[in-house]
Amino acid sequence: MSDTAAILEISPFDDLLGLALREAEGDSIAGVVEIRPELTQPIGMVHGGVYAAIAEGLASLATNRRVARRGAIALGQSNACTFLRPISAGQIHALARPCHRGISTWVWDVEMSDDAGRICAVCRVTIAVRERGAR
Amino acid sequence: MSDTAAILEISPFDDLLGLALREAEGDSIAGVVEIRPELTQPIGMVHGGVYAAIAEGLASLATNRRVARRGAIALGQSNACTFLRPISAGQIHALARPCHRGISTWVWDVEMSDDAGRICAVCRVTIAVRERGAR
Amino acid sequence: MSDTAAILEISPFDDLLGLALREAEGDSIAGVVEIRPELTQPIGMVHGGVYAAIAEGLASLATNRRVARRGAIALGQSNACTFLRPISAGQIHALARPCHRGISTWVWDVEMSDDAGRICAVCRVTIAVRERGAR
Amino acid sequence: MSDTAAILEISPFDDLLGLALREAEGDSIAGVVEIRPELTQPIGMVHGGVYAAIAEGLASLATNRRVARRGAIALGQSNACTFLRPISAGQIHALARPCHRGISTWVWDVEMSDDAGRICAVCRVTIAVRERGAR
Repeated sequence: MSDTAAILEISPFDDLLGLALREAEGDSIAGVVEIRPELTQPIGMVHGGVYAAIAEGLASLATNRRVARRGAIALGQSNACTFLRPISAGQIHALARPCHRGISTWVWDVEMSDDAGRICAVCRVTIAVRERGAR
Repeated sequence: MSDTAAILEISPFDDLLGLALREAEGDSIAGVVEIRPELTQPIGMVHGGVYAAIAEGLASLATNRRVARRGAIALGQSNACTFLRPISAGQIHALARPCHRGISTWVWDVEMSDDAGRICAVCRVTIAVRERGAR
Repeated sequence: MSDTAAILEISPFDDLLGLALREAEGDSIAGVVEIRPELTQPIGMVHGGVYAAIAEGLASLATNRRVARRGAIALGQSNACTFLRPISAGQIHALARPCHRGISTWVWDVEMSDDAGRICAVCRVTIAVRERGAR
Repeated sequence: MSDTAAILEISPFDDLLGLALREAEGDSIAGVVEIRPELTQPIGMVHGGVYAAIAEGLASLATNRRVARRGAIALGQSNACTFLRPISAGQIHALARPCHRGISTWVWDVEMSDDAGRICAVCRVTIAVRERGAR
């Protein structure tokens, strides 16, 4: 698979998590992950790194979908998560919305909720946009 | 395995990543992860979520090692990573150092480097310390 | 002025910035700051610390307005700003919206815009809620 | 004063805070701010925005001192502070150390302590380095 095709698909690590995409309005993107034992910390709650990874994966993919056509690629620059509600079962429902679409950076707000719609984590992800030849 | 024992061991998700602990001085803790294809984003670089997960796992475990004996447990509160150097092979070498050891929160600085010692990512992780009955 | 009255008013540092409150819907709160030379960095753009301070001030005040009646007080725990567009004149228009209203923490998203409505900075502020006798 | 000279000096907002520079080793930079009533929140503790502003000011100035000679300028990109200990008197002692010195970004760790050397706040500041003609 060429780089151009690859950056428009779920990445290997997102696949390991079990991330499945859901469509969303405009430039937003959504996804769900089924909670299973391998995604938890010692007492059965979803591991904080899972939320960070989902947010990173969705923000990167959604940015790539907009910038790949002009020969650019998304590279994560920072990822800041706040954990609000520990959960241990069901699905994680993630929605990523852009709050800045610049030439060299996109900034995303990602909200993750449980099956009852209660927010479990919020992440702010900054994605650098680089020319593909320049990386 | 009881909760008390579980929170002193590598968690299921850290195990999925392949995190292996290394001892470090004082309250610090270290770990390594072998880079393999399942841990990457679309063009073969380590996925940002992997760094966040390693940082979260080490900070949580190291906090639990200090607070478990008094009946408390570590719960991640926030995790902020800055990605500095994309890498695609070798090992990720992580070192977590506490920068605050409070009654209700511990704050950790986690630095992740490649095999040549170059910093790839830095994360600041805030861990809430809660009574185990109170969670 | 008693502590209870004080925590419901603009603080001394917010006053130094020139923060003026504007009402907003529900638990949200808004404010404006007139840009003047003392608020800038060396080349006349608004200093990043000004955005952080406005976000901190609004989030703290709005939290206090909800928790003061039950004898609690807001104490800033973390403040993370991303700067998106440098500006040098006019007003900074800030809107703070709660994204989590917990027992022990409130989390706020603060968006700051210029006179044309373009976003200049976004901040995520975590406010700890403590009993007033306990601080 | 030319831009080149201005970016090597304390900025107007840093001056409003009362920031005084102290030399430090290597690329690090230090500063102190005398706590006075105008820098506080409603109950007399240092306002969180003050810590963020000090961190932003020191990181920007120290970056400019390294990049100005090659025609570049520092522009704040993000600023994340964690508040650890509220204080109300004496001086804030700040030390900013670079943890990344890249072509397009510098990342700084800033630690702020009270007169007794106890850490009050830690901030991570990312500074974008731009060509001066390009801003």
